[in-house]
Amino acid sequence: MERLSEEQITKELDNLSNWKRLDEKWIARKYRFRNYLDGVRFVDKIAEYAENKQHHPFISIDYKVVTLKISSWQAKGLTDLDFEMVKHFDELYENGGRK
Amino acid sequence: MERLSEEQITKELDNLSNWKRLDEKWIARKYRFRNYLDGVRFVDKIAEYAENKQHHPFISIDYKVVTLKISSWQAKGLTDLDFEMVKHFDELYENGGRK
Repeated sequence: MERLSEEQITKELDNLSNWKRLDEKWIARKYRFRNYLDGVRFVDKIAEYAENKQHHPFISIDYKVVTLKISSWQAKGLTDLDFEMVKHFDELYENGGRK
Repeated sequence: MERLSEEQITKELDNLSNWKRLDEKWIARKYRFRNYLDGVRFVDKIAEYAENKQHHPFISIDYKVVTLKISSWQAKGLTDLDFEMVKHFDELYENGGRK
């Protein structure tokens, strides 16, 4: 999968206000939960989806805050797959994951 | 719970060769798994145990490597509870978690 251009990345991020560019290669978002185990269950869903896609974001759990970071190392940057997955992460959060 | 002395911490770490001191307050260990979802299941067990203890390590999942970092923020350092939990994390890994 091809790396997106700066212009394409900026356009994608315009519609993803919760996602922040960390550097050239990575975008990240923090998700907050009311309960610790709700965050852990969200991570389970993220991981199952990531394994199906064979594309695994970096995940961290800091009490009730789950952070996801994503990049396509093969492409040395961000690809369509990253943005497709990011949108699905947000959907999982909005549709019940958040609690 | 009281913060342990430097001497006590050194003694505890002598028996925990996989755990590394990060700084005054934190110790950390990386656990490696054969499969991504084995690592995720390990995180589920860690989280359930942490919630029971109401003491939550920082967890990260970087593909097949799970990193745990622990400290007792109330005590501003490391306590007996941290080392009790660390030993249980290692047991969970050794007894099947590792796969």
